[in-house]
Amino acid sequence: MTTSAPVTRIDLDTVAELAAQLRVDSIRSSTSAGSGHPTSSMSAADLIATLVSRHLRYDWDDPRSPSNDHLIFSKGHASPLLYSVFRAVGVVSEDELLTGYRRFGQRLEGHPTPVLPWVDVATGSLGQGLPDGVGVALAGRYLERLPYRVWVLCGDSEMAEGSMWEALDKASYYRLSNLIAIVDVNRLGQRGPTELGWNLDAYARRAEAFGARVFTVDGHNLNAIDDVLTLAAEPPDGQPAVILARTIKGYGFSEVEDRDGWHGKPFPPDMAERAIAELGGVRNLTIRGPRPYRVPEPRPEPPAPGAALPEYGVGEKVATRKAYGDALVAVGGRDGRVVALDGEVSNSTHADEFAHTYPDRYFEMFIAEQQMVAAATGLAVRGYRPFASTFAAFLTRAYDFIRMGAISGVDLRLVGSHAGVEIGADGPSQMALEDLAMLRAVHGSTVLYPADATSTVALVEAMATTPGISYLRTTRGAYPVLYPAGEPFPVGGSKVLRSSDTDDVTLVGAGVTLHACLRAAELLRQNAISARVIDCYSVKPIDAATLAAAATATSGRIVVAEDHHPEGGLGSAVADALLASGPAALELARLAVSGMPGSGSGEELMAWAGIDAEHIAAAARSLTG
Amino acid sequence: MTTSAPVTRIDLDTVAELAAQLRVDSIRSSTSAGSGHPTSSMSAADLIATLVSRHLRYDWDDPRSPSNDHLIFSKGHASPLLYSVFRAVGVVSEDELLTGYRRFGQRLEGHPTPVLPWVDVATGSLGQGLPDGVGVALAGRYLERLPYRVWVLCGDSEMAEGSMWEALDKASYYRLSNLIAIVDVNRLGQRGPTELGWNLDAYARRAEAFGARVFTVDGHNLNAIDDVLTLAAEPPDGQPAVILARTIKGYGFSEVEDRDGWHGKPFPPDMAERAIAELGGVRNLTIRGPRPYRVPEPRPEPPAPGAALPEYGVGEKVATRKAYGDALVAVGGRDGRVVALDGEVSNSTHADEFAHTYPDRYFEMFIAEQQMVAAATGLAVRGYRPFASTFAAFLTRAYDFIRMGAISGVDLRLVGSHAGVEIGADGPSQMALEDLAMLRAVHGSTVLYPADATSTVALVEAMATTPGISYLRTTRGAYPVLYPAGEPFPVGGSKVLRSSDTDDVTLVGAGVTLHACLRAAELLRQNAISARVIDCYSVKPIDAATLAAAATATSGRIVVAEDHHPEGGLGSAVADALLASGPAALELARLAVSGMPGSGSGEELMAWAGIDAEHIAAAARSLTG
Repeated sequence: MTTSAPVTRIDLDTVAELAAQLRVDSIRSSTSAGSGHPTSSMSAADLIATLVSRHLRYDWDDPRSPSNDHLIFSKGHASPLLYSVFRAVGVVSEDELLTGYRRFGQRLEGHPTPVLPWVDVATGSLGQGLPDGVGVALAGRYLERLPYRVWVLCGDSEMAEGSMWEALDKASYYRLSNLIAIVDVNRLGQRGPTELGWNLDAYARRAEAFGARVFTVDGHNLNAIDDVLTLAAEPPDGQPAVILARTIKGYGFSEVEDRDGWHGKPFPPDMAERAIAELGGVRNLTIRGPRPYRVPEPRPEPPAPGAALPEYGVGEKVATRKAYGDALVAVGGRDGRVVALDGEVSNSTHADEFAHTYPDRYFEMFIAEQQMVAAATGLAVRGYRPFASTFAAFLTRAYDFIRMGAISGVDLRLVGSHAGVEIGADGPSQMALEDLAMLRAVHGSTVLYPADATSTVALVEAMATTPGISYLRTTRGAYPVLYPAGEPFPVGGSKVLRSSDTDDVTLVGAGVTLHACLRAAELLRQNAISARVIDCYSVKPIDAATLAAAATATSGRIVVAEDHHPEGGLGSAVADALLASGPAALELARLAVSGMPGSGSGEELMAWAGIDAEHIAAAARSLTG
Repeated sequence: MTTSAPVTRIDLDTVAELAAQLRVDSIRSSTSAGSGHPTSSMSAADLIATLVSRHLRYDWDDPRSPSNDHLIFSKGHASPLLYSVFRAVGVVSEDELLTGYRRFGQRLEGHPTPVLPWVDVATGSLGQGLPDGVGVALAGRYLERLPYRVWVLCGDSEMAEGSMWEALDKASYYRLSNLIAIVDVNRLGQRGPTELGWNLDAYARRAEAFGARVFTVDGHNLNAIDDVLTLAAEPPDGQPAVILARTIKGYGFSEVEDRDGWHGKPFPPDMAERAIAELGGVRNLTIRGPRPYRVPEPRPEPPAPGAALPEYGVGEKVATRKAYGDALVAVGGRDGRVVALDGEVSNSTHADEFAHTYPDRYFEMFIAEQQMVAAATGLAVRGYRPFASTFAAFLTRAYDFIRMGAISGVDLRLVGSHAGVEIGADGPSQMALEDLAMLRAVHGSTVLYPADATSTVALVEAMATTPGISYLRTTRGAYPVLYPAGEPFPVGGSKVLRSSDTDDVTLVGAGVTLHACLRAAELLRQNAISARVIDCYSVKPIDAATLAAAATATSGRIVVAEDHHPEGGLGSAVADALLASGPAALELARLAVSGMPGSGSGEELMAWAGIDAEHIAAAARSLTG
C-alpha cells in the first residue's frame, strides 16, 4: 500500500543551526508580542528541530495530505516554538511571526488552534494534546490504516494530569505504536519545580507500567535525540513510545537557563538582544524534512447501504436511550464515517448495539470520560463522525475536553443517558442535573432532548451532520411513542402537540417532562383550562418563534418544566427566547429540580421535585386563576 | 499523644461468618429494593469483613470521634455491602436495611452519601473516593496530626479514571502512609471484562511506579487478607499502600460467580433464596472491631490573631486576583481552619501569598484540578475551610468533582482567575467563558464576581463561612478600586453605583463589565441619557429586589453585559430574577461573548465581543431611542 518516501536527510549541523533559529525566533516573536513562553520553547527546540528535520514526514504544502504525520503540541504554551517551525518550513513569514503573534485578528494565537491549517487540535489546557493524539492514532491504525505517526510534544508539568495516564493506558490497550510522546522534562513549572523534577527514572517507571516503550535522552544532544527518535518510530510492535528528554528551561541563554521565575515571560528587548547574540544571531534557514509516504488516493466512501431508520408504533413504550442505540446502528450503516465510543456503560446507553453491529468502528474507552471525548476529538480530526456516550452525569467529567473541542472546531456528538431525577433509585451521583446548562454554555453547541423514540431517531440522524458540539440527552425509562415514524424534527424546531384558538396557558416540556405536560393538559381540561403543549426537543437552538406565538396566544402564561437544576437548562432557554422576542409581559412559571434528591422511584422523585403532571397543572391553574 | 486502643480481636471464623452475613444482607437488601449491585458487594465482602472486624479503628457510636479511622467506598455502587456492615455493627436495623434501601425519603441511598453519619463523602461517580481520601489523609497527617487511617475500597474498573492516578501521585508526593487503597479486582465491569482483567502484576507495576507500597492478595482468603491489612497499616514509612485483591464477582453464589451480565442486577426472589441457602442462610451477628486510639480532646482553636483585612484606596488600580491573595492571607490569619490549594498557578491566582504566609496550611496540587477539588473535599470533611484556586477555565476540568462535592454537602471555596476574553493574548483555551453557567447550575452554590479589590476582600471573608459550593471569579487585569475599605458586600446583595429619580435605562455589570458600564454611563450622559448602574457582584443568589426596582424605575429597559458566553451566566441570572419578580414588560439587552475569541488585548477583545463601554452605551441608546 505504501511506497517509500524520498528522504532528504538534513545533517545534524544544519539541525543545530535550525534549533538556534527556533530559539531565536521564539524569543523574537514573544518579545515582539510582549507575552508568551520563550523559555518553555527553548527547552524543546533541539527535540523539535531534530524531529522536524529528520523524522516528521509532512508535506507542508498540503497539510490535508492523508499520510502526513501529525505533530501536536500538548504543551500548547510552547506556541513560539511551533510557529518558529512554521517559519522555518516556509509556511509562515518572518513578518507574520514578528507582527502577528498573539495579536488581535491574527492566526498565530497565544496557544495553537486549528485556525492554522497545520494544527490538528487546540491545546493550552494542559493534559489534552496526548489524549487527542490517541484519537488520531486510533484513526490511523484501525480506520484509515495509514502509515502516519502521531508525535506529541508534552510538558513535564502536565504529566500530573490524570488524563495523560488515561491516554497512555488507552494507547497501550489499543497497541498504538504509531503514537510517540516526547516529554520535555525541563523540571520547572509555572510557579516552581515540578513534582518529579529531573527524576526521569520515576517518569520512566510510570510510563513503562502503563505499557509504553520508554526512551530517555539528553534533550540537548542532537545525536542522541536523533537516535531515540529513530528507535521510537521503529516498525510497530504494538506499544506507544514515550521519549523522556532531560532538558533545560531557557536553554541557550545563560541568564535564564534553569532559573525559576521565567515561566511565561517574554524577555524585555535588551535581554532579547543579549539572548539572540548569545545564540549566534538571527538566521534565515528554510528547511523541509522527509515527505510523507505516498499512498493511493483514498477511495471514495462506498455507497451507503441505505440502512433503514428504526420505526416505532405510536403508543409503544420505548426508552429514548434504546432508540438512540437503534438509530445509531442505522446511521452507522448509511455513513462509514460514523464511529462510536462509550465509557464502559454501553449496555445502558445502548451504544452496544453499534458495537455489536460495527465492531471495527467502535472504541471502548472504559471508565475514562476525558479520554473518551479526547479520542472522539482525534477521530473527528481525521474526518470521522464520532458519537460518544455515557451517563449524562458523567459527561461533567469531560467538560474541559468538551470546551476545548469547541475551540478545536471539531464536530463531536455527545450522548448522555440516565438524565435527571427520573432515573430513580440510583440516587444523585448518577442524576445529570447540570448537563443542559453545561452544554448550552459551550460555544456553537447544539442541545437536543427528545421525548420519544421517533424524535430520537430523527435527531440522531441530524446529529451525524450537525457541526460543532452536539449533545443528545436521553432518558432511562420507557415512555410512549408520541410521533409517527418519519415525522421530521429539524434542529431548532419544536412540536405543538396540543393547541386550540382559545388556549389559556402554554405548557413547555422536553424529554420526560413533556409526558408530564401532556398529562397535565388532561388534568387541566377537567378544570376547563385549555393548555397548549409544546415539545421543546431542541433546547439550543430553541424555537423562539413558536414559543413567542404561544406566549401571545396564551396571554404570556407559560409553564416550563424540566428535570434539571433551575439554572441554565430548559427553563433558561425558554426564558431567554421569550425575553429576546419582545417586550410582552410574561407570566412564566418555571418548574425544576431545586432540592438535592435522594433515591426513590422516578415518579416519586418527579413529584418530590415538583415537575410531575400534578405540579405542572397546579402551576398552570395558579397562572390562570 | 496517643494511647493504645483496647483491641477486641475477633477470630477469623467469626469473620467468615460475618462475610457470609454481609453477602446475604447485600442480596437481601438489593432484592428487596429491586435494584442495586449485589455481585459487586459479594466480591469485596471478605475484604471488608476482615477490615471492619480486625483493623478499622472506629467508634460506631461516635462517628464524629476525631481519631476514628475513615472508610470510604470509592466503588459506591457496593452500597449494599456498606449498609450491611452498618447493620452488622448495630447502627442500622435489619428492618431499615430491608425496607429502606433505595427507597424514597430513606437514607440508605443507591450510592452512599453523608446523609448517613458514617459516610464521609458521596461516591457513585467512580474515581472520586480515593482522591477524596487523599484530602482526608492530608488533614490527618499535616493538620490534625491524628493517628487515623483512611481506608478506601476501590473498584478495578475505576482504575481507568486518570483521577485515581492523580490521587496516588499526590498520596506518594505527600507521603500519605495513612492512606490504604484496597482494590477489589473482580475483573468484570458493567458491560464486560475490565481492561486489565486479573492481571494484578500490571496494576502492581502502575501503583508501585506511582509511589505506593503494593500488596497482592487472594481476596477470599481471610488469613491472607488479615496479614496484608496488617502489613499495609504498619507504622508509617511515607508511602501510601495499595492492596490488590484478586476477587470473584458474585463470590459465594455459584450461579453468578465470575459471570458476565450480572453487574448492577439484583437477584430475583427465587434466585436470592437459592443464593442465601448456598451462603448458609440469614445470620444475625453483631460485631464491633477495634476502637480508635484515645487522643486528647482537640484543643479549641486559639483565639484569632485578628489579622487586618487588606485595604485599598479608591481609584487605585488593583487586580481582583491580587486582592484575593491579600484577603486570603488575612482570612487565614483569623481562622486556623482556612487552608488553601492551588493547581500550579499560585503566582497567577495569588494563592502564593497564602502559601508563603501559612506554608503548613497550603497544599500544592500541581496541574491536577480534579485532585485539587477532591483534596479540598477531604479537607472539608475534617472540618477545614479550603479555598482552591486555578485559572477559572481549568475548573471545568473538575466539574464532576464539584458536582459530587455538592452531593457530599461539603463547603468548598473555589476561586477562578483569568476569566473571560479580558485576559487577552493567551487566547481561548485560557478564557473561562462557561464558568458562571457551570457553577450556577450546582445545587446550593454561591457565585460571586467582584469588580474591585474592596468587594473582593469582603467576599473572600464571606466565603470562609459560606455553606456549600461557593465560587469567586477574579480578573486578570488591574482596575480602579470603586469602594472605600470596609464597605459591606453581603452575599445576595448588589450595589447601585449611579442612580437618579429620572433614570432612563439600567446598566448591569459584574467584574470587568461593571467598569465598562460605568464608562458607558458617562458616554450616555453626553446623549442626555441617564443610566442607573448596578454592580451585580453576587450572581447567585442575585439581588432580585434591586434589579426589579431598577426595571420599574427605567421602564423595563435594562442592559446587562458579561464576559461569558450568552448562556447561563450573568445575563441569565438577571433575566431569571426579573422574570420571577413579576409580569412587567421588559426590554432586556443582553451583551455577552457570542463568538469564538482569538488572541488580542483585553480591550480589543471586549470591543470585538461587544461588551465594552461603547457597545453597552449603544445598546442603551437603542433601548431608549
